[in-house]
Amino acid sequence: MLDAAKRLLMPSKRSDVAPFIVMDVMAAAARIEAAGGRVIHMEVGQPAAPAPSTARRAAMAALAAGNLGYTAALGMPSLRRRIARYYKDCHALDIDPDRVVVTTGSSSAFILSFLALLDAGDRVALASPGYPPYRHILQALDCEPVSIPITQATRYAMTVDALRETHRTSPLRGILVASPANPTGTMMAGAALGDLIRAAEAEGIAFISDEIYHGLDYAFAAETALAFSPNVIVINSFSKYFCMTGFRIGWMVVPETLVRTIERLQQNLAISVPTLSQIAAEAAFEGRDEMEAVKRGYEENRQILLDGLPKAGLDQFLPVDGAFYLYADISRFSNDSHDFARRMLSEAGVAATPGIDFDPLNGGKFLRFCYAGSTAHMREAVERISGWLRR
Amino acid sequence: MLDAAKRLLMPSKRSDVAPFIVMDVMAAAARIEAAGGRVIHMEVGQPAAPAPSTARRAAMAALAAGNLGYTAALGMPSLRRRIARYYKDCHALDIDPDRVVVTTGSSSAFILSFLALLDAGDRVALASPGYPPYRHILQALDCEPVSIPITQATRYAMTVDALRETHRTSPLRGILVASPANPTGTMMAGAALGDLIRAAEAEGIAFISDEIYHGLDYAFAAETALAFSPNVIVINSFSKYFCMTGFRIGWMVVPETLVRTIERLQQNLAISVPTLSQIAAEAAFEGRDEMEAVKRGYEENRQILLDGLPKAGLDQFLPVDGAFYLYADISRFSNDSHDFARRMLSEAGVAATPGIDFDPLNGGKFLRFCYAGSTAHMREAVERISGWLRR
Repeated sequence: MLDAAKRLLMPSKRSDVAPFIVMDVMAAAARIEAAGGRVIHMEVGQPAAPAPSTARRAAMAALAAGNLGYTAALGMPSLRRRIARYYKDCHALDIDPDRVVVTTGSSSAFILSFLALLDAGDRVALASPGYPPYRHILQALDCEPVSIPITQATRYAMTVDALRETHRTSPLRGILVASPANPTGTMMAGAALGDLIRAAEAEGIAFISDEIYHGLDYAFAAETALAFSPNVIVINSFSKYFCMTGFRIGWMVVPETLVRTIERLQQNLAISVPTLSQIAAEAAFEGRDEMEAVKRGYEENRQILLDGLPKAGLDQFLPVDGAFYLYADISRFSNDSHDFARRMLSEAGVAATPGIDFDPLNGGKFLRFCYAGSTAHMREAVERISGWLRR
Repeated sequence: MLDAAKRLLMPSKRSDVAPFIVMDVMAAAARIEAAGGRVIHMEVGQPAAPAPSTARRAAMAALAAGNLGYTAALGMPSLRRRIARYYKDCHALDIDPDRVVVTTGSSSAFILSFLALLDAGDRVALASPGYPPYRHILQALDCEPVSIPITQATRYAMTVDALRETHRTSPLRGILVASPANPTGTMMAGAALGDLIRAAEAEGIAFISDEIYHGLDYAFAAETALAFSPNVIVINSFSKYFCMTGFRIGWMVVPETLVRTIERLQQNLAISVPTLSQIAAEAAFEGRDEMEAVKRGYEENRQILLDGLPKAGLDQFLPVDGAFYLYADISRFSNDSHDFARRMLSEAGVAATPGIDFDPLNGGKFLRFCYAGSTAHMREAVERISGWLRR
């Protein structure tokens, strides 16, 4: 046994999760800017545009009116109803508002859904590359993330075969799929998503669908997992389409039988979700015109990169279907994406995220570019990268 | 093995935590009000007053300015510095801003501190009665809450002897103490707190001090655990003194060696804390005059209850030192506080929280009254209770 003084402040084993490497890039970019340099930011997955004016006005009115107390743990009833209506409007689905859970960003939705479904040791299948906090939250909760590599052969989609094969080796309790995905921007076709959901259900594997990039689809329309089954957990957020990252507001749609479990967890883990953010979120739905204009900007940015990066020498990337990411193969130039990103930042003044953040195995060969910035910046980024790679 | 269909949506074992019973009381009160009845709310631990006007104005200005993106995971540097200054101003302590972690209410501070320090199976000592989410968050994270009953003999404080005795039986990894406490409103004298911290450290037991009710002390001044050791974790919030419950914004001061662990957890579990709430919180410190006026209202309310409840027949309560709670012994009338609270609500129109929420063992004999409402309501509550108990 350790002596008392050493034991006192020893971190737990489960807290030993990796940081976001993107944070290192951000810090390096900030140092360059502090020294008077200019950086084009393509590293953080965050819109440059502000939240809808409808959302901001509603929050200002609430602040002027005064009191902003706790809300019900599952969220303001009017917001839950408004979110349910979104499924009617966008997907022609009838969702009972009682199945909608308002959360503090999709981040807390992951924690809630993992705690509701998973006990220590439970295994969850994830696509690799994938969003790092999936792995790290699971680890912090003593669960086991099981990475399934995705490849060109299946258009970078998780497949029924891969799921069954992994489950046979050692049983899975859950599978988490994002479409459009981060860091790739790649989407699953509706049919493939439906097949995967049915296969998971048949095996008793809970299906969690991360739909945070819904609304930002360019190649074809994104389909919600709810179209295929009422037994899935869907996670979404106001951060991306509605440009509300700093508001930390998201939602889940959960099977009826899990509502009470999640309500009890939220009562204890959070009491309730930030009230001002809930009020803003409800009003955000009335700002869709503004957001469609923002989306058209992303489409223009996407086209600038699709045209410009190949000319600059970066001509291999995963299907650029949705979200605001382009995941480029840099292996012609380097197999060390961390070093490549560092040099591109210091020498070309363009910040992007090394793939190693998203894929410990093959991420050394990839770089994630976020194109949620301004169109002028995208053009300039292409020029800078082009000039830099020619040197 | 369960068949697939049954396994699919089965909640985890660790999600089987109790709800807040206070939520039942709130729902019943809402039904009475919906039917046209009037209820005096003394059940929820929430100030009736709004956030400082300085905080609300700062949030409105930020909304008008536009973009509200993610902040650094540990919080805005200016807010961390301002919180550090609070310790200088109020406790004459020099706290390095790097040790300050901004959190989404004290709720997320509990999750972060538990994950940072505790692995599955680790035991944490808690006073009973106590704040129910302490127990339930620990359970959801597979840790073991160990209740230590507090009694009149020690002025309802956790003692060095009780801590050592519990630790000898089966080792503790942590101890969590609140002063002023919820639901009792009782405080620990500074010397007793210091003794307990030193004893815990000597045994290698991590000390977590919940100081959410600091600033709301009437009997004597509350002392921060940081005055006794740099190795404690202190948790605080803008919810109570600053009347900002719905903003979900709090903070921790942590030992230097845990900062990076907690930063990595927060990056993954939350990305960052609501930006608008951080901006409002920083400005809240400039609204202390308003909050001192609110506090004087609580002092008046407290005196109304201290004078009025004994005349009404409720003359036994724990020391009413701080926070805005009075924890009354109702055993003269009932040993079923849930039923008593229900009847007091429906027959007298006064909502309060059954002690059973805070103390599964003896809570049947107690009721928690929150006196954070208006002075007029407090007077009316005393009259209603008095008339009701005389019947």
